[in-house]
Amino acid sequence: MTEEKRHFLDYVFNPRSVAVVGATDKKESVNYYLVSNLVGLKYTGKIYPVHPRLKELLGLKVYPSVSSIEDEVDLVVISVGAGKTLDVVRDCVAKRVKAISITAGGFSEGGAEGKNIEREMLRLTGEAGIRVVGPNALSPINTANNLAVGFGPMKILARGNLGFIFQSGLYQTRINWLYSHFKLRMSKLIDLGNKMDIKEVDALEYLAQDDETKAIGIHMESIAGDARRFLKLLKQTTAQKPVVVLKSGRTEAGAKAASSHTGAIIKSGDIAFDTALKQGGAIRARDLEEFFDFTKVFNYLPPLKGNRLAISVFSGGEGVLAIDACQGAGLVPAELSPSVQHSLRKIFPPWESSYNPFDFNVSMQFHSFVESADGLYTALLDDPNVDCLVVQAWGFSPHEHEHAVKALTAFNKYKPVAAWIADPLSGKELGENLEAAGVPVFSSGERAVRALGALHKYYQIKNGR
Amino acid sequence: MTEEKRHFLDYVFNPRSVAVVGATDKKESVNYYLVSNLVGLKYTGKIYPVHPRLKELLGLKVYPSVSSIEDEVDLVVISVGAGKTLDVVRDCVAKRVKAISITAGGFSEGGAEGKNIEREMLRLTGEAGIRVVGPNALSPINTANNLAVGFGPMKILARGNLGFIFQSGLYQTRINWLYSHFKLRMSKLIDLGNKMDIKEVDALEYLAQDDETKAIGIHMESIAGDARRFLKLLKQTTAQKPVVVLKSGRTEAGAKAASSHTGAIIKSGDIAFDTALKQGGAIRARDLEEFFDFTKVFNYLPPLKGNRLAISVFSGGEGVLAIDACQGAGLVPAELSPSVQHSLRKIFPPWESSYNPFDFNVSMQFHSFVESADGLYTALLDDPNVDCLVVQAWGFSPHEHEHAVKALTAFNKYKPVAAWIADPLSGKELGENLEAAGVPVFSSGERAVRALGALHKYYQIKNGR
Repeated sequence: MTEEKRHFLDYVFNPRSVAVVGATDKKESVNYYLVSNLVGLKYTGKIYPVHPRLKELLGLKVYPSVSSIEDEVDLVVISVGAGKTLDVVRDCVAKRVKAISITAGGFSEGGAEGKNIEREMLRLTGEAGIRVVGPNALSPINTANNLAVGFGPMKILARGNLGFIFQSGLYQTRINWLYSHFKLRMSKLIDLGNKMDIKEVDALEYLAQDDETKAIGIHMESIAGDARRFLKLLKQTTAQKPVVVLKSGRTEAGAKAASSHTGAIIKSGDIAFDTALKQGGAIRARDLEEFFDFTKVFNYLPPLKGNRLAISVFSGGEGVLAIDACQGAGLVPAELSPSVQHSLRKIFPPWESSYNPFDFNVSMQFHSFVESADGLYTALLDDPNVDCLVVQAWGFSPHEHEHAVKALTAFNKYKPVAAWIADPLSGKELGENLEAAGVPVFSSGERAVRALGALHKYYQIKNGR
Repeated sequence: MTEEKRHFLDYVFNPRSVAVVGATDKKESVNYYLVSNLVGLKYTGKIYPVHPRLKELLGLKVYPSVSSIEDEVDLVVISVGAGKTLDVVRDCVAKRVKAISITAGGFSEGGAEGKNIEREMLRLTGEAGIRVVGPNALSPINTANNLAVGFGPMKILARGNLGFIFQSGLYQTRINWLYSHFKLRMSKLIDLGNKMDIKEVDALEYLAQDDETKAIGIHMESIAGDARRFLKLLKQTTAQKPVVVLKSGRTEAGAKAASSHTGAIIKSGDIAFDTALKQGGAIRARDLEEFFDFTKVFNYLPPLKGNRLAISVFSGGEGVLAIDACQGAGLVPAELSPSVQHSLRKIFPPWESSYNPFDFNVSMQFHSFVESADGLYTALLDDPNVDCLVVQAWGFSPHEHEHAVKALTAFNKYKPVAAWIADPLSGKELGENLEAAGVPVFSSGERAVRALGALHKYYQIKNGR
């Protein structure tokens, strides 16, 4: 890409060099991790720590100011108090850096004085043509070049196809969790903070055209700037890629807290926002766990074209709860074809053959685990009345674990499978093996059903246009 | 207790001896665990495995039939096919056992033939004065005498004050999870299955008068028998102990699945049921995870008298989400007294001192973790406008972990605390230490808020009478 054609956010995600103002050798300070993560994760660009007195940090030369760095500087991460930030921004302008990301808080969310500083920063950078993320933001992450800004230790960046836009550093308290608990593999992440300059519309525009990003998750507390433009862009984007939205500040108290948090003025009611999201083709998540469940399902599974769901369980009670979850999720329990029902008599006693959810505990009173699994999954795969499967996975022995992974992976090649684990403790390894083989695992049957429902809903919206 | 005065369920929970029909030495059969759990957990009564040919099992003498056992038999667990169960019941009647628990399925949930067998079993046991749990049930668990019936390996029974009534063996796929993931400590558990004889009203009656049970969780798919009597008993019970209810078969598809699952005829609509539960003073959970969250909060925390909640976070974004959750949970974000707000200026910059949620990431840009924690928690504890605390717990070092546990445990002595962990992976040990010290941990801030909301709601109902 030539310099002329680069999107301004490309300097944030793909800088050739990063300067960190506020770098420190004090391990008890959150700022320590700004540089240590870049070093530890092996960021592929150049790193320039900036500190008034330090000479060396983690083997890197430390500079007293941004303008004292000899090389060109693409991105500057500023993590000093609000009062000092303006001077650093002036220095960045003098150095003619390409982009700035400001972590410090205490600006527009803090009152008149902070607002004035923001205004002055915006004027200075605007005149210089420098784009700014934040303030009050922790950005960015790009798994392609191991660039990661965070206030805590990051051990691994799992590369994948999910792009995230946050209006909060919440991801940074969740960074290990995103990878290890939710097994989310991401392409890029941007936290927008106060959205003084760069707004969700800019981030969405960038991720929409980013080839490494196949699905987008947005956490937002408000729409900044031109809501109409954002919604138009949302509609264009969802025609190509799914977008999952978690909107906080839903309630009056939440909106007030959000205003204090990022200085945003929350104008529109939640119902208006909900309607706008629907028109934009986005999938809305109710809470944080659902947000990660929904992004996960797009991370793992291909399009789902029908809504007829088979459920296989080790607990009839959990099966009924999963069936209950279908209605809200827009799915219906699959009714098997008569011939397939008949074939299930091989493994189920006659009174069990006809209904969904299918209970392994019944079959296993008469047959082995392997016989039960093969009999059931073959039947469900053969049946044209079944579009997808939610499975409560279990196996008592390593051999059964292995068989479950093999059978469900094979199934998932033809019809999407979402799993939950019967016993999340003894089944921890089973869950990890399923996810490594491409079958997403959720923490309950109800949540697996809701996630498949989101998958179905997106393709319904997309194909309904 | 003299024999005359014993509640009939006392023979189920406190039998002096248990016979297991269907015992097997085949480790790949779920029936294997029926005896191995009793042996492994060191059930304090006598164990009599029953099998037509085996002579010895896990060091125990095996009997060819129940009636061939020389001693008195209090409880018989029957785990053979539906077709063979009737003969075993006849044998139990001949032996004059005190109670029976039937695990097998294929009775009223399976059609006319199964219904007939149930009717005949009920006639026989009714005439003999023998009470029956199930069929299609996995009962009981009593942590006081290490009696546990389950189709999978159980490693530990954590004794506590929660009593569970399930209409499903779902707990048995969750048994390790209940203890290790949710850290639920239970007194007794009964799975009612098809409720041929013993119904939820009987189980509730027993747990209501059980001194070891301080809170009750009920999972039900239907009300069997006299709904009016159940609701009257529910009202009496909730005047003494909290009762959390998870009702499945909420939707039409779910009700149909529940009918197939346990043979129950689901009569009333979900709205009528909801109203009845409210009149009975019960707390209703929306899904399985919420059910365990709600029972957990009663398991850990004392009464909560006010609804003014302080929230302390490491992520402003997660804080806003937690504030959003207040409205639905019946809690309000606490507004601090002016003097306490003033005292927070010691740790927060001026723009942060006045609002809830309180963000550690802001304070920690200026102060150490310990200073921030002490400053904030002391202020919130002193403030009469704060009734309870939801805290996103974190600590970067072992020292900070230890300090967090100490500070929150001290807080919890005066005002209830519910926690979630900022990074559930690196904070796993922190979560375990908090729970060992009596502070319950939930998987998100929103869920911690909803759980405290359930706690508040119960005491509001109880004291409002």
